[in-house]
This record gives sequence, structure tokens and C-alpha cells, in this order.
Amino acid sequence: MSSGAILWLTGLSGAGKTTLAQAVGERLRAVTAVEILDGEELRRDLSQELGFSKADRDINVRRLGLIGRLLARHGVFVITAAISPYADTRAEMRRAAERERIPFVEAFVDSSLQTLIDRDVKGLYRRALAGEIDHFTGISDPYEPPSQPDVVVKTDVESVRESVEVILRVLVDRGLVAFH
Amino acid sequence: MSSGAILWLTGLSGAGKTTLAQAVGERLRAVTAVEILDGEELRRDLSQELGFSKADRDINVRRLGLIGRLLARHGVFVITAAISPYADTRAEMRRAAERERIPFVEAFVDSSLQTLIDRDVKGLYRRALAGEIDHFTGISDPYEPPSQPDVVVKTDVESVRESVEVILRVLVDRGLVAFH
Repeated sequence: MSSGAILWLTGLSGAGKTTLAQAVGERLRAVTAVEILDGEELRRDLSQELGFSKADRDINVRRLGLIGRLLARHGVFVITAAISPYADTRAEMRRAAERERIPFVEAFVDSSLQTLIDRDVKGLYRRALAGEIDHFTGISDPYEPPSQPDVVVKTDVESVRESVEVILRVLVDRGLVAFH
Repeated sequence: MSSGAILWLTGLSGAGKTTLAQAVGERLRAVTAVEILDGEELRRDLSQELGFSKADRDINVRRLGLIGRLLARHGVFVITAAISPYADTRAEMRRAAERERIPFVEAFVDSSLQTLIDRDVKGLYRRALAGEIDHFTGISDPYEPPSQPDVVVKTDVESVRESVEVILRVLVDRGLVAFH
């Protein structure tokens, strides 16, 4: 059994967290057990009652972290894909993982807000800017970028393939996975 | 990696679910990866907002089931210890596990209500009978015993050691674990 780890993706809505989680997960599955914990799916299945206040977002992030640690404890390489906008809560998740000697890699999925507004794949930014969505991260709710992320991918200028390589390089360099 | 499974303990408060989960888990750890999901702990960590209506209990049980399946998918032998009073919700958890080809063993941790009231280790039955606790299973809230459990342990007459052996026998007979 390989040893588990947590790759924590954080970034704005639409920045590419889910896409990257799946692409990185695909590559890792060749060498280890992988589970992707998607913030939106988890909300639907585990946190239907939660809203988007800081308190509620924190609860959702803590649930994600708890389930991630449970899996990582058993050798699973966990990738979380959730906006997780608050730096203190992400730091709390890192501490909780490291307390259990679970390696924790914070990856900032960075895209300029303007690019996201221009692309607006799901039409959410338009609605948020029109005031139709409360607590929309980046528009009407804060996003605190990581001050010292373990890895940064610039999804507004890199291809998915490039960003995947950047992340995998860090995982390999830190000895968390090995490709033969 | 061994293949995962879910041992689902159900029974009244004080019947011995947590004790049995720990004792069975201890034995299984010699041969496989084990995680115990305790209903009360999960409530504290994952479901602080939930009460004890049927709807809320069902949500808690579904969360337990979801996390159990996530772990079992990765070869972990999961033991859940939660009252889980409603037969339809337990049946739903069985179907969800079996849909993923995860073996699901329902163990009825059976003790007569009178014995539990007499013992009343935590003093909860006294308070429930005095009307101080709403929605207390067995007193002011229903408990639907399994009609076709995979295994029954009678904790009001068996020792913990005896009940553990009864459960392990079923797990071995079903080919879910092997002791060498």
C-alpha cells in the first residue's frame, strides 16, 4: 500500500479545479489509489443544508478535510477540488493533516477574475455581477489567495496538460508519487 | 490490498455498538485495514446541525453510508456504529453498497429495552423516561429492528467476547476475512 496524501486545490469558480483534479487523478491512478473529493458533489451529498456564509463554507471545507484524512490514512491519494476561499480554514486543514503525518500539498489554481468573467462557462459570473447570486466568490464574497502555496498553476495562460505537469512535478519532487 | 466491506451495526442506545465495533475492529486489524465510523462522533464532526427527526437521522445515516462506501471502495473494512433506527434507510444503505459490489453485513446489536433501562450507563434512559430528552430511540422515538439481519448478537445475555465471535464467524463464513 502506498502512503496517502492530500492535494488540496483552491481557486475561484471556473478556474479549472475539477478539470485538473480529474486530469491529475487520471495520471496518478496508474501508480496509486486515488479519490477525488469535489466540493460541489460533497455539498449535494453531505452538506445540503449549508449556505455560503463563512461559517457554512468553513463547515463544508472541514468535512472535506475530515473525509480526505480518513481516506489518506488508508493510503489513498486524495485530491480535493473546492473553492475553499478562506486562508485560515485551509491552514487548519493543513495542520490537521500534518498532525496525522499526512502530506498536504496546497495547489493554487490561479486564473484572473477577468478571464473567468470573460469565459463564464456556466453563466454564473454574469448572474453574480447582475446581483442575482449572493455570496459569489470573487464578486460578492472574498477569495483569499494562498500566500505560500506549494504549487501554483496559471490556468488562464497554461493548457490543462501544462498545469497537470506542473502539479505532478511537485508531487514527484516531494517524493509523494513515483512514475516508473 | 484486501477488498473492502461494510459491517453495519444497528441497535438501541447503550446496546453495545461502539464497544463491539472496537472489539471486532481490533481483531480485524490483524488481517485488514479497518475504520470505525461512530455515529455519535460523526454527528459531532459532520452533522452538528442535525437533530433527531426521521429526516435528520436519515441524513446522518446516509452520510455515514457515503463515507463508508468511499473507504470500502479502497479496500477498507468499515464498521459503522450508529443507532440507525429506520429499516428503510438501512435497506437503502445496503442497496447503495451492493450497487458498488461492496459486501454489506447488517448486524443487529440486540438488547432488551428493560435491560438497557436497568443498566442505563449514561443515565440517558432515566432522563428520556422523565421526558427530558425528545426523540430518544426506544422511549419517545421508534426503533425498527431488522427483519432479516445477517447476524444478531444478544448483548444482554452474551459477553462482549461471545458477541465478537458470533460476528467474526459470519464474516469468515461469508469469505470477507480470513484468519490464518
